[in-house]
Amino acid sequence: MPITLSSRSLGARGSIIRELLKKAAQPGMISFGGGSPDPLSFPSQEISRRVRAAFENNSKALLSYGISEGFPDLVASLKAYLADREGICFENNELIILSGGQQCADLTARLLVNEGDRVLVESPSFVGCLNAFRAYGGKLVGVPMDREGMDLNLLEEALQGQRISLLYTIPTFQNPTGFSASLENRRAVYALARRYDVPILEDNPYGELRFEGEKLPSLKSMDVDGRVLYMCSFSKTLAPGLRVGWLVVPKPLFTAFKIAKQSADVHSCTLYQQVCHELLTQWDYEAHLERIRALYQQKCQRMDQEMRDHLHPAITWNKPQGGLFIMMFLPQGMDALPLVDAAARRGVITVPGSAFMADPDAPHNGIRLNYSMPSLDQISQGIRLLGEESYRLLA
Amino acid sequence: MPITLSSRSLGARGSIIRELLKKAAQPGMISFGGGSPDPLSFPSQEISRRVRAAFENNSKALLSYGISEGFPDLVASLKAYLADREGICFENNELIILSGGQQCADLTARLLVNEGDRVLVESPSFVGCLNAFRAYGGKLVGVPMDREGMDLNLLEEALQGQRISLLYTIPTFQNPTGFSASLENRRAVYALARRYDVPILEDNPYGELRFEGEKLPSLKSMDVDGRVLYMCSFSKTLAPGLRVGWLVVPKPLFTAFKIAKQSADVHSCTLYQQVCHELLTQWDYEAHLERIRALYQQKCQRMDQEMRDHLHPAITWNKPQGGLFIMMFLPQGMDALPLVDAAARRGVITVPGSAFMADPDAPHNGIRLNYSMPSLDQISQGIRLLGEESYRLLA
Repeated sequence: MPITLSSRSLGARGSIIRELLKKAAQPGMISFGGGSPDPLSFPSQEISRRVRAAFENNSKALLSYGISEGFPDLVASLKAYLADREGICFENNELIILSGGQQCADLTARLLVNEGDRVLVESPSFVGCLNAFRAYGGKLVGVPMDREGMDLNLLEEALQGQRISLLYTIPTFQNPTGFSASLENRRAVYALARRYDVPILEDNPYGELRFEGEKLPSLKSMDVDGRVLYMCSFSKTLAPGLRVGWLVVPKPLFTAFKIAKQSADVHSCTLYQQVCHELLTQWDYEAHLERIRALYQQKCQRMDQEMRDHLHPAITWNKPQGGLFIMMFLPQGMDALPLVDAAARRGVITVPGSAFMADPDAPHNGIRLNYSMPSLDQISQGIRLLGEESYRLLA
Repeated sequence: MPITLSSRSLGARGSIIRELLKKAAQPGMISFGGGSPDPLSFPSQEISRRVRAAFENNSKALLSYGISEGFPDLVASLKAYLADREGICFENNELIILSGGQQCADLTARLLVNEGDRVLVESPSFVGCLNAFRAYGGKLVGVPMDREGMDLNLLEEALQGQRISLLYTIPTFQNPTGFSASLENRRAVYALARRYDVPILEDNPYGELRFEGEKLPSLKSMDVDGRVLYMCSFSKTLAPGLRVGWLVVPKPLFTAFKIAKQSADVHSCTLYQQVCHELLTQWDYEAHLERIRALYQQKCQRMDQEMRDHLHPAITWNKPQGGLFIMMFLPQGMDALPLVDAAARRGVITVPGSAFMADPDAPHNGIRLNYSMPSLDQISQGIRLLGEESYRLLA
């Protein structure tokens, strides 16, 4: 029998990036395509040791049903961490542990986005979250993103139109652009959301990966009226395979999220939540972050330098101060897809900007380059090949 | 600001059972309330050893992003297992690994149930899945369940009404009744679903826990036209904390489920998927199941015997041939809630039948008793206390 899919799921899309990653796993390929952290950055020994100890101490608790809202020790240590590092106040907020950042976006969409509702997103933006909004029938409205953050005039214009049910933003080291919103821009975005009474989902997976410049406050830290939901995870700072993320929500929403988590998958992995708690409190997590920052700074500098040396001069980009990505731009109006395809034929995997757009079928002049995963040698070799193709196509 | 919840989530409910479990964790309480397997049945040593070895061998792979559709080795070994044990044919079906049975129900509801759609469920039925359907705005329609399975006349009547988008059934050792649908009933349910062109979600978490009687074929094994989705997990046979479940879907639905999983939480725990694969293929899983069956048979017999000896004679029940539950029934028309409350005051936690109904606010004469979790002594002591209260209330 042909089984009819629900109307909400008709807009669901898979990530072309996860398909690209399978291609990139073929031998000899150089991948700037993924968004994965460098496996060398995983504290594998430390995690392994703690996993073993956890099983030796209390395997029964690890193997029994866990608590939907999260392993209590980790909830407590994350609250302390976020209060200290991000200035997030928990008087009017609660924290729930979820299975990675992706589940934070998924449950937020489930609870806040009706079928057909408009969701405001940066253009371009992280395709995983765009797909979460699409999976619930959300209609994406893109607001262009530049070096300062979202274009405020266009943001206000979008807010003045049909009702927006959610504004999704990655203010720091945005995926895919690598841009960070300025302090003024953050304040203005929050003020506009307030004026037009729209809740904000703030995504901050890369904030701790700053290797240059000064830390900027999160929108959540500015939230005086309980409109910001703040999501983050250990995927880029410890390891993505742990699938441990968290969502800070205004207290009135907490019960709905707890019920949604229960209904979605009962609870996240207790073992890995316990390990994350231990790494956050009984280990020098800050020294670990410093090592990752140094690693990515070196890779970012290498990529930037090779880009200066080898890309066609009509190509522009912004050297980021942290995170995992550089987005390079062809001259305005050019579609980047031919260059992405040409590079792939030379064995270099990149992602076209169109993949990150509200409308992924429209041409886009950007190409996302990831520098966290490839080695320094691969960065040099890959950018050189990309450079050769850029000269061929822009000639 | 007050943030407005999506219309779909207004029908979402939390599990009163998970709240009961917190109460039951208090010292001195005897709990027949949960649905957890006995921690003594967990192969803790074996899992612990394999977790350690997995980390020693390839921690990088465990800590990196995994595959959305499941760890390939486990997908393959589960297919072989299901083909062999359940007669499920994979020519026209695919298997996807999800985070426990709960996520199987969640993603099925997401993909097949529109807001306002009617979902046909056994009455009473497993509240976790009922809540998954409610979370997407599904409207539950209950069909009474007796010792033979769903009432076929009432099932057909329900099917003749407004369109049903999904039929959810637990044919074997149903939760909460412990009843198993007869072979004839299974055939008739499948035939009716076919006549009225309704997809079936078949849930089989307890099928391997048969300690008496003959194995009955799954609806999936009768499925000639790709209308049955079959869900199962290792929660009752290995350990619930692993959060490893799987869903067999007709091939045309596979891509939609893969995308839904990607969008929900990217992938399930690679470590535990690998461990489950090893336990299924490099260990005597069948001998392990035999040990669990013997354990639960003993507990079930003890509970049944104590019930015969101590409950008021107006109370009836069916001794199950497997699974985790006995449902006892007060005389027709009586609400079980006063007995549940009286038992709780004596320190014995049970769950009223109403908790498992499409309409949980209506009275119900059943009480679910779980025998897997309490010890033999607790079973004896708890049923005696329950018996005293039954005489008091039925006097």
